[in-house]
Amino acid sequence: MGLGRCNLARALFVFCAALAIGVVVCALSSANGQTRKPPLVRIAELEIDSQQLFAYRDALKEEIATSIRLEPGVLTLYAVALKDHPNQVRIFETYQDQAAYESHIQTPHFKKYKNETQGMVKSLKLVEAEPILLGKK
Amino acid sequence: MGLGRCNLARALFVFCAALAIGVVVCALSSANGQTRKPPLVRIAELEIDSQQLFAYRDALKEEIATSIRLEPGVLTLYAVALKDHPNQVRIFETYQDQAAYESHIQTPHFKKYKNETQGMVKSLKLVEAEPILLGKK
Repeated sequence: MGLGRCNLARALFVFCAALAIGVVVCALSSANGQTRKPPLVRIAELEIDSQQLFAYRDALKEEIATSIRLEPGVLTLYAVALKDHPNQVRIFETYQDQAAYESHIQTPHFKKYKNETQGMVKSLKLVEAEPILLGKK
Repeated sequence: MGLGRCNLARALFVFCAALAIGVVVCALSSANGQTRKPPLVRIAELEIDSQQLFAYRDALKEEIATSIRLEPGVLTLYAVALKDHPNQVRIFETYQDQAAYESHIQTPHFKKYKNETQGMVKSLKLVEAEPILLGKK
């Protein structure tokens, strides 16, 4: 019986230790409720027809605002124009994962943006990137 | 006395209206306690010596983490490596304003990063940009 209790205590200890390790691993793998898997990052480099720059910017702003509002997996769409070349646009895009990106390009608002702007975009280059550190406030 | 009261009421009305307009203007010019002035944005494009890539990434990560933690005016330092060219680094930087940027480059942690990495960075291009829309969660 003495040995039985000892074994029981040992089993209980091992179980509790495993549970504690599980909790720690789970906590480490999550941050603010999101998985730690790095997001998908891409930089879009666009050249816009100067004659249609304002119309393009309006369409882009609408698309970004809608994506951020409606799509949980769209984390950032930071769109900027280069100071010295305002028709050169860069969009710093981060998505929760590949699935979030695939879903994004199937949305009605993204398709509307693509249709509206196809005659405005003179060139588009999508640069795939991997996070080193995405530092933000 | 009747006219006096009337004038007093009118003055009070004008005062209250001016106060209300002031409050509305103030509210419109602020968002989440910050001014609506667009942040200063720049994209840093760096080429790193491939032999020193890991050391560079460590120094960069330390600099970013410290800047975000200590400097209220440093809003994002999103550092990524291009997938096809890992020694090509891009940093999407946003600062609250020019003063925040000037202050940033005078900090001990930024100077430490610059000193440590000066022999690792083969080229550095700073591209000034203006926000179109910085959409984020």
